Amino acid sequence: MPKYKLTYFDLRGRAETTRLLFTVSGVAFEDERIGQEQWRSIKHKIPGNSLPFLSIDGFLISQSMAINRHLARTFGLDGETLSQKARVDEIVEYLVAMKNKMAELPMMSDDPRTHEKAQEILKSFQELMMKACTFIEAQIQINMKEGNGFAVGNRLTIADIMIFEAFESILATNSKALDKCVGITKCRSKVANMPRIKDYLSKRKFTSF
Amino acid sequence: MPKYKLTYFDLRGRAETTRLLFTVSGVAFEDERIGQEQWRSIKHKIPGNSLPFLSIDGFLISQSMAINRHLARTFGLDGETLSQKARVDEIVEYLVAMKNKMAELPMMSDDPRTHEKAQEILKSFQELMMKACTFIEAQIQINMKEGNGFAVGNRLTIADIMIFEAFESILATNSKALDKCVGITKCRSKVANMPRIKDYLSKRKFTSF
Repeated sequence: MPKYKLTYFDLRGRAETTRLLFTVSGVAFEDERIGQEQWRSIKHKIPGNSLPFLSIDGFLISQSMAINRHLARTFGLDGETLSQKARVDEIVEYLVAMKNKMAELPMMSDDPRTHEKAQEILKSFQELMMKACTFIEAQIQINMKEGNGFAVGNRLTIADIMIFEAFESILATNSKALDKCVGITKCRSKVANMPRIKDYLSKRKFTSF
Repeated sequence: MPKYKLTYFDLRGRAETTRLLFTVSGVAFEDERIGQEQWRSIKHKIPGNSLPFLSIDGFLISQSMAINRHLARTFGLDGETLSQKARVDEIVEYLVAMKNKMAELPMMSDDPRTHEKAQEILKSFQELMMKACTFIEAQIQINMKEGNGFAVGNRLTIADIMIFEAFESILATNSKALDKCVGITKCRSKVANMPRIKDYLSKRKFTSF
């Protein structure tokens, strides 16, 4: 087994899906969490100058979604058939679009200009969330006929992991956000109750996002 | 061979990488181009309600990058080894981030508020372009030691196709944009001169983006 080291800030942010992929697969990794100062001191040495990055026996991968796709392929969490892999990718794209917009959301402020901009981003985020939820809920409902509650096929994939993770911050702000999405809620619960994930979540350090 | 039909507006936009993947692989597809009115009349029937979408014998895939990844896997353009696939994904992510920001660029206007916003997006786009160019140029320089000019490994991948396509509109606006990126320029030229691509480009209908 190669030696994996994930480097990121002390946040869930763009690294949590990666941590969950390691966790659910039972694969050990070093979870290096660094501060802004340490990051500034090593940034110039990292290809792409961005966090997170993953070292695999010294082979560096940047870009969180390139990291996640690599681990999903390596751990067999990317779907079994070509059609399943396409469906997994499709779900992931809807969630990535939603998450990217969420990351743009500035803190609301009393400055009318900043406030107006925040409102614009918020509106765009809500549209992308609605789009993601509508697509994914329909997909889970179709896939439920196979009776196992995963989003694609009859095994866990990165799509389920991201369905769990992408809504964590949203639900922390509004616990009713997924009330109308029965399939997504069941799928998230299924992921959260997988023994390795359950154990990980029970011990996870709290960070606000 | 399945029957492929790609549906999008009459633009390069988010569909051109897909068209190039079909073209370079010599795989026939129906290139359906629709107007806003036609799109409004079918939008509610399409999962995800978004363009482009690809029909494969009636199996629909939405999200341009899910479509592109599916075709890259199907046509063997996603890299050979796990490490190559990771590198391909990584390059693609830098280009997607750049392209997404470019798509946000509104038309410059004389309205100071719109103008200010456009300047902000432009700055962010320029940073993402610099980041993509720096990472990809370094990767191509490393990979050139294998002497074949592709971005990853010694075969064409979706990374090369996207390196060609992502800079088309940028170079149309500023022909010197890649003057400092010798590797990227060589890679783009290699793609543009592949016989099927060359033939396609010589006959392609002009659209402004």
